[in-house]
Amino acid sequence: MDRPVVAVILAGGTGSRLYPASRSDRPKQFLALGDPDDDRSLLARTAERTGFADATLVATRPEFADEVPEHAPNAEVVVEPAGKDTGPAILYATHRAREAVDGDPVVVVLPADHHVPDGDAFEATMARGARVAADTDRLVAFGVKPTRPATGYGYIEPGEGHSGDGSAVDYRDLAAFHEKPGADNAAEYVEAGYYWNAGIFAWTPAALFREARDTPLGPLADALDGDDPDPEAGFAAVDPVSIDYAVMERAEGAAVVPADFAWDDLGAWDALDRVLDADDDGNVVGGGAEALAVDAADNVVAADDTHVSLVGVEGLCVVAYDDRVLVVPKEQAQRVRDAVDRLKENGRF
Amino acid sequence: MDRPVVAVILAGGTGSRLYPASRSDRPKQFLALGDPDDDRSLLARTAERTGFADATLVATRPEFADEVPEHAPNAEVVVEPAGKDTGPAILYATHRAREAVDGDPVVVVLPADHHVPDGDAFEATMARGARVAADTDRLVAFGVKPTRPATGYGYIEPGEGHSGDGSAVDYRDLAAFHEKPGADNAAEYVEAGYYWNAGIFAWTPAALFREARDTPLGPLADALDGDDPDPEAGFAAVDPVSIDYAVMERAEGAAVVPADFAWDDLGAWDALDRVLDADDDGNVVGGGAEALAVDAADNVVAADDTHVSLVGVEGLCVVAYDDRVLVVPKEQAQRVRDAVDRLKENGRF
Repeated sequence: MDRPVVAVILAGGTGSRLYPASRSDRPKQFLALGDPDDDRSLLARTAERTGFADATLVATRPEFADEVPEHAPNAEVVVEPAGKDTGPAILYATHRAREAVDGDPVVVVLPADHHVPDGDAFEATMARGARVAADTDRLVAFGVKPTRPATGYGYIEPGEGHSGDGSAVDYRDLAAFHEKPGADNAAEYVEAGYYWNAGIFAWTPAALFREARDTPLGPLADALDGDDPDPEAGFAAVDPVSIDYAVMERAEGAAVVPADFAWDDLGAWDALDRVLDADDDGNVVGGGAEALAVDAADNVVAADDTHVSLVGVEGLCVVAYDDRVLVVPKEQAQRVRDAVDRLKENGRF
Repeated sequence: MDRPVVAVILAGGTGSRLYPASRSDRPKQFLALGDPDDDRSLLARTAERTGFADATLVATRPEFADEVPEHAPNAEVVVEPAGKDTGPAILYATHRAREAVDGDPVVVVLPADHHVPDGDAFEATMARGARVAADTDRLVAFGVKPTRPATGYGYIEPGEGHSGDGSAVDYRDLAAFHEKPGADNAAEYVEAGYYWNAGIFAWTPAALFREARDTPLGPLADALDGDDPDPEAGFAAVDPVSIDYAVMERAEGAAVVPADFAWDDLGAWDALDRVLDADDDGNVVGGGAEALAVDAADNVVAADDTHVSLVGVEGLCVVAYDDRVLVVPKEQAQRVRDAVDRLKENGRF
C-alpha cells in the first residue's frame, strides 16, 4: 500500500471497573495486567503492536500526558482539548494523524488497554484493515470472532463478503451493530456468525469526516476539517458521545474486517478468569499477588505485593492495591462501576 | 478479705484466628480490637481491669516479654520457661504469684485478650470470686451467663448454690464442664441455666497444687511446690496441656462464681459482629478500616488504614492488615485456623 498508516492509541480512559488497581491517577492502560510474564503496561504492549504503522499517536487527557512516554517512547502524544468520550477524541486524533506523516494517511484507531496475546496476528489484521479502508474509502470496524456468547460486548452483524484479490474474503459489509445482548441473544449472535465489536477501527480521514458531518459530531468535524482548524471551538460545540453511537452505528456502507486473534477487553475483574491459568480449584491469581486457598474455588485474586488468604469462598473477585481492597462476586464484576461512582462522589477515586 | 489478691494475666498466645491482624510477632492481646473508641490493646484494657488485685502478673512467652510493659506498665512480667499451653503456664504463674506479695495470696487467672466492656462489674465479680476461693479453698471458675446458644464456648453446669452471708447465692458447686456443644445441645444448656466457661479462674496456690498433683501436671506441681522449686525440670517433665483438661475438669469440689457482665472472647472475626454497632445493612467495620458497601449486607470488615469496598456480597469477613488480606464467610470464621496452619508450614505466619 502506498499510503502511510498512522496508529492512534486511545489512552484517555481510566478503566474504573478495574478499581482499585485503576485509580484516578493510575488508569488501567498504565497497569501490567493479563500476562503474568510481561511486566509492561497494557499501553506499552499496545504500542509494541503498532509495528504495522508508519507513526503512532497516543491520544490521552492532560493529566496522563506526562506519563505516556514512559510506556510508549516512540509515540507522539496527542492531548485531547477536553474529555468528551471517544467520539470527539477520535475525530481530533484522526485530524492530528494527518500532520504526523507525509502523505494522506490511513488511520487505525485502537484502545490502549486490551489484551491481545498474539501480536503478529494482530498486526497482520490491522494492516489488512488499513488496506481495506484505503481501497474502499469505507469506515472499517474490526470484528473479533466470538469464542463464547459474551453479554459484555457489542456485536457486529456482517453482510456480504468481499475480497481484494477474488479469493478469500477480505472484509464484509457491516450490516448492523447490536448493543450488549442478553444471554439468549448472545447465543443467537454467536450462532449466526456475528462478531464482537472490539472498538478497533480503520479509515481515511476523508471518510471519517465525511461520515461524521451529519451526526452529533458534525460541528467538530467542520471545525477540524477545513483550512483553519479550530479544535477548541469544535470541542465546545459538541457533547460527550461515543464514536460508536455518534458515527459508526449510522455510517453508510461501513465494512467489517474479521479478526481471529485472541482478544479480551479486560473490562472487569472477572476477565482475569479468562486470560490467566487457574489452579486445580479454578482460582486465578494476577498482579503481584500471592494467594492461599483453603477450600476456596473459582475465585479471582489480583493485588500488588499482597498475600491473600481465601477460606471457604467461591466465585469472588478479591482485589487489593495500595491501601484499597475490593470484594465482589465474579458475576457482578461490572458493578464495580457503582462503587467507583460512590468513591468519585467523595473524591476518593 | 485479709489475704492479698494477685491477678495473673495470660498473654502467651497468638490468637491465630484473628489473622492477619494477629501475626507471629503481633499477637491478639497487643491489638486494639472490639471497642472503636479505645485505642488501647486488649492486654492494656485487661490490665486496667485488675484494680481488684494487690499485684498483677503478666505471664507470657519470651518473644512477647519485651513489649508487655508498653501495654501493662504496672504489671510484673513472668516469662514461661517453655510454651506448653495454659496448664503449665498457669501452674508456673500461680507459683510466681506467691513471691509477688507479702502474705499467702489468692490468685485470679484471666486471659489477656477478651472483650469486657464493663470493667466495674468485672472487678466486682473478680473480687467476689477471690473471696470464695479464699473462704472455701476450692478451685473457682467464673461462669458467664449466656446471651445466646453459642457453639463456640465450653459450658459449665452448676450444682447447689451457696452464699457467704446466707442471703443471695454467692457461688455454686461446679457439677460438670461441657465441651463446645452442637447447636441443639447449646440451646439446652442455655435453657438449663448453664454458664459459659470464660477461662477465668480463682484459687489459692495451695488449692491449685493440691488438685494438680494427681493429674498430668503432677510432676510440674511437685517441682514448683516444694522447698527448692525447679521450674525448668518441672516443665521438662510435662507435656503441653490446657488447664481445663488437666485440672479443672477432674477437680474435686470446684465451684462456679456466676458473672453477668457482658463478655466475648473475640475468638474469631465473626465476634466483631457481636461487639460492634452495625450499619443499616448489618455491616460492621472494625480497626482503622473505612468501608464502602454497595448492595452488601451482614459483612464484617476489619483492617488497619485500609479502605474496603464490598459490592454485592453477604455474610463475609474481609480483613486487611499490613500486606495481608483474608476473606472468609462469617459462619466459617473458625477455619482461619486452617489458613494459619498452612502459613505456619511455610514460615509465613
